[in-house]
Amino acid sequence: MAHHNHPIVGDLRKTVPIPEDTPNVQGYDFNQGVDYRALLKAYLTTGLQATKVGLAIQKINAMIERRQQPVEGGVDEDPSTCPCLMSCTIFLGYTSNLISSGLRETIRYLAEHKMVDVLVTTAGGIEEDLMKCFSPAYIGDFTMSGKDLYKKGHNRAGNTLIPQENYVKFHKWMPPILKQMLLEQNTQGVCWTPSKMIHRLGKEINNPESVYYWAYKMYIPVLCPALTDGAIGDELFVFSAENPGLKLDIVEGKRFDGSDSGGSPDEAMSWGKIKVDAKPVKVCADASIIFPLLVAETFAVHANKMTAGKENK
Amino acid sequence: MAHHNHPIVGDLRKTVPIPEDTPNVQGYDFNQGVDYRALLKAYLTTGLQATKVGLAIQKINAMIERRQQPVEGGVDEDPSTCPCLMSCTIFLGYTSNLISSGLRETIRYLAEHKMVDVLVTTAGGIEEDLMKCFSPAYIGDFTMSGKDLYKKGHNRAGNTLIPQENYVKFHKWMPPILKQMLLEQNTQGVCWTPSKMIHRLGKEINNPESVYYWAYKMYIPVLCPALTDGAIGDELFVFSAENPGLKLDIVEGKRFDGSDSGGSPDEAMSWGKIKVDAKPVKVCADASIIFPLLVAETFAVHANKMTAGKENK
Amino acid sequence: MAHHNHPIVGDLRKTVPIPEDTPNVQGYDFNQGVDYRALLKAYLTTGLQATKVGLAIQKINAMIERRQQPVEGGVDEDPSTCPCLMSCTIFLGYTSNLISSGLRETIRYLAEHKMVDVLVTTAGGIEEDLMKCFSPAYIGDFTMSGKDLYKKGHNRAGNTLIPQENYVKFHKWMPPILKQMLLEQNTQGVCWTPSKMIHRLGKEINNPESVYYWAYKMYIPVLCPALTDGAIGDELFVFSAENPGLKLDIVEGKRFDGSDSGGSPDEAMSWGKIKVDAKPVKVCADASIIFPLLVAETFAVHANKMTAGKENK
Amino acid sequence: MAHHNHPIVGDLRKTVPIPEDTPNVQGYDFNQGVDYRALLKAYLTTGLQATKVGLAIQKINAMIERRQQPVEGGVDEDPSTCPCLMSCTIFLGYTSNLISSGLRETIRYLAEHKMVDVLVTTAGGIEEDLMKCFSPAYIGDFTMSGKDLYKKGHNRAGNTLIPQENYVKFHKWMPPILKQMLLEQNTQGVCWTPSKMIHRLGKEINNPESVYYWAYKMYIPVLCPALTDGAIGDELFVFSAENPGLKLDIVEGKRFDGSDSGGSPDEAMSWGKIKVDAKPVKVCADASIIFPLLVAETFAVHANKMTAGKENK
Repeated sequence: MAHHNHPIVGDLRKTVPIPEDTPNVQGYDFNQGVDYRALLKAYLTTGLQATKVGLAIQKINAMIERRQQPVEGGVDEDPSTCPCLMSCTIFLGYTSNLISSGLRETIRYLAEHKMVDVLVTTAGGIEEDLMKCFSPAYIGDFTMSGKDLYKKGHNRAGNTLIPQENYVKFHKWMPPILKQMLLEQNTQGVCWTPSKMIHRLGKEINNPESVYYWAYKMYIPVLCPALTDGAIGDELFVFSAENPGLKLDIVEGKRFDGSDSGGSPDEAMSWGKIKVDAKPVKVCADASIIFPLLVAETFAVHANKMTAGKENK
Repeated sequence: MAHHNHPIVGDLRKTVPIPEDTPNVQGYDFNQGVDYRALLKAYLTTGLQATKVGLAIQKINAMIERRQQPVEGGVDEDPSTCPCLMSCTIFLGYTSNLISSGLRETIRYLAEHKMVDVLVTTAGGIEEDLMKCFSPAYIGDFTMSGKDLYKKGHNRAGNTLIPQENYVKFHKWMPPILKQMLLEQNTQGVCWTPSKMIHRLGKEINNPESVYYWAYKMYIPVLCPALTDGAIGDELFVFSAENPGLKLDIVEGKRFDGSDSGGSPDEAMSWGKIKVDAKPVKVCADASIIFPLLVAETFAVHANKMTAGKENK
Repeated sequence: MAHHNHPIVGDLRKTVPIPEDTPNVQGYDFNQGVDYRALLKAYLTTGLQATKVGLAIQKINAMIERRQQPVEGGVDEDPSTCPCLMSCTIFLGYTSNLISSGLRETIRYLAEHKMVDVLVTTAGGIEEDLMKCFSPAYIGDFTMSGKDLYKKGHNRAGNTLIPQENYVKFHKWMPPILKQMLLEQNTQGVCWTPSKMIHRLGKEINNPESVYYWAYKMYIPVLCPALTDGAIGDELFVFSAENPGLKLDIVEGKRFDGSDSGGSPDEAMSWGKIKVDAKPVKVCADASIIFPLLVAETFAVHANKMTAGKENK
Repeated sequence: MAHHNHPIVGDLRKTVPIPEDTPNVQGYDFNQGVDYRALLKAYLTTGLQATKVGLAIQKINAMIERRQQPVEGGVDEDPSTCPCLMSCTIFLGYTSNLISSGLRETIRYLAEHKMVDVLVTTAGGIEEDLMKCFSPAYIGDFTMSGKDLYKKGHNRAGNTLIPQENYVKFHKWMPPILKQMLLEQNTQGVCWTPSKMIHRLGKEINNPESVYYWAYKMYIPVLCPALTDGAIGDELFVFSAENPGLKLDIVEGKRFDGSDSGGSPDEAMSWGKIKVDAKPVKVCADASIIFPLLVAETFAVHANKMTAGKENK
């Protein structure tokens, strides 16, 4: 029974006037033709999650503008290399399936043009990007049989397929890099952290399709404390059996707080993770659909203004 | 722990080549600027729900093309008035919250131009449309306090607000119509059904902003067997206490099958609701975001070709 | 990244003492052995949805106690036949898949002992119960192939299978009943409503395994305005083609409000569906797991006290 | 519209007989009184997620029995200290909110009696357990205002409240331990890993209410690669500013695969994480409700037989 809410008949409540600046619910009118920019603008007054998308666009644009302003008091250091000295630091967090999907191209674009300051992801969010430089992933279907795919060597992530040969190639690519890292640790005293290792992998992959190639080039730190929680961890385990001694330290360098944890913004406020006078926006929607639209209406609009700073050589 | 899937290291499975026509996962490249049409085309190869959106666009466009073809064998009757004589009948089902939201404008557009053949909705999906002709709904927030809103007479549906006065106006508008319907039943032998009553309400509201005004004008049947399950039911109950006798029959005229029921397309296939060789697409996404995009890439593109047929006067 | 919430280090907020009567979070201690009654009692202080289950048990028990009290002012009418004269009226709403599942036995128990006052369900919630009197449904699996099942005539509802032959038997059983209903309408002036028709079907099925057999016997009204939205509707359509005239009126007799609509209790409060000083409980959990536990700790405890009243003959 | 699935009327498909050993859908019959053991047994034939719970109970009991069998070929090492030498290794993975909730007592019970072999959790899953040894968490509500709670120093995790003073106490408790760890690293060459550090914290907390006290005592490894992703990370950051040098290495010792990643068991099968002839069970339900019931019907039944082995002193 799809009962809907409605007041009891004869309910005599007087209606207090709605404040004058409250927007009417009003969707896009297709009688004016298909104008995508106007259609996305209409999200704000469409209600439900569309309104949230409209609010998120406003919030992100405010962040971008704030980020471009000089820090009060002034600093001598080059802000392009140190997110902490900017007046607004933009973190971008994402899970590995977004890197497996075509959102990788959007994230790569943001890194390439240094439009975000810090990347936060999981082990899979690192290694799937690197493997895509060896050979592509493919479009499959959510209902493909695991048993059949296993026999074919087609690993399924949602409705994308990652050929087993990508892992075989990754397995050949890693050892020389790990050997070199171990050498630098032992001879130059390098203390490897997940963040440093990711930059090194980005340098080695040397491919402009890679997110981490650009993270390395543009000095964008990547936070991934559980970097060993995937294929990279397996490689480290196998490598270390024959070449013991490589360390990956998670104490040094991690100093950012404020993640979401899956709770509501209101819950995060109780912890002091979100300021009590903030107006956070949380959109509940499939990222593969929404994220490109958000970027199109925010970062991509500011593209020319934002691209700046110096590169890693 | 956000463990991600990865094969066991040393897994020696050979990879069977992926069929050649399988698309690579490839997202939109913002380095080519913001081109919404291209961006939405890239959904197809983005993976996750974005791919489903791409497939749904293809499927809907195929339906629209099929619908425009003449029926085999030919018929004399006017297809604009009888969906069963068309080579493809398009049903549009929706819940009341979409009518409360700005999607009402999109649904109204589809009805206005007779781009769909049958509407299927709930009681709220009818009455919220009519009430919006009296005064607008407003944008609120999902977290507004029910207690405070009750005192103000602001009824909340998700993050939209429907003033109590809309119900008061509806409560004044309905009785003369019900009186006339009772008269026609008793003097002309009209057997009222939910579908007939909705067309009558669409005629009486006489407002081109209303979905049901256009459903009436364009002869689009509206299926809503539980029409009494809301404010209309309350009005009928109060009216009948003083004017007994009005009947609303749910036996006559219901002859469509094939709804979704919330199950998967595969489940529906076991019941014969979906042909076993069909390739149905189910997109899991927030309708307020996706539905305008789907219409923009399908019905709105065919707008000129589709608008045809004669109107109710 | 499974970041969890934690306050920023060095956060110097003073902690206002928690009110003394606030329960500590404390789960069941298995070192005292397996005592299910104690385990379920511990839900209240376990947090998350378990606490909601604990609160729901308290709330239902309060409803049951309230229902057993005499109405203020006193009434002459027999409360066993009229829920409106009881000091608390208990509605039980459920979807068809719960009737397809083994929860049917729990609902049947509640009807058999008249522990609830009104049943609210969908068309499938009626017909699946009746068909189970012809032959059982079977346990299947959520992933069984729709294509294969279709060929075998095994209709899948979640992970249960309903043989096609149940529909064939239903198709043979219905016409004589519809014929008799049409006769009574035409000769005795019976105005059939969904509720009256369901009681008639419950009488005809004459099987103590049926929920509606007991709804009929114990005078429990069943609200199902969209009764034609399923196999019963198909039967009515086919029957009416040869035997026109049977009406099923949805105006007469519907007078209950207060349903959930899928929104939050707080949303319902803004509409006046829930009193502003009420403390409603909404448990988010799978009904097939929770409903038997709830009944075990509430209705089943009061079983002896509640069973009373007179029966339909 | 809550349309339900039903076959088209006149659908003449023959029904292939259901295999004889297929269980009928049959729920618990409360007419036999409230017998919890029988009620939970009836889950298996109830359908929906209840059937999954029934299957999970069978699967876990099979694991427990297999785990108690001697390894083929025999080994000299003491199986109580090395899960890899047992014929079946049981991993228990959980998120931090389960430790905040009363499920901590259930997990503690499993560790105390060494009923599982490896624990896998997040940073919060460690520190919330330790802090509960200082003072309790409290039952709150999901809808409590973040703003108000922040001012009171009551941090909300779902519907539980963690007083800020617990973090203050934790902040006092940690530094001497970190100092000692640094000393041992520098003087004894200890290479600290997350797993070793958790055992040390379990030893230091020295409280039988703690999960990690028992993990330490019973030699149960705890996998938590992102241990710094919470309050412990903050403590390490602050400590290291004044006492640089402590390392936490995530390369050494991690050698387990097979986690879930949120995908379906069928997806995991394509990666070789689940054997293609396995019959995995995934229950979709709220853990706070289900986990105690699962333990009650499995581990707690085997309690006497399982408790064995030697302890850390």
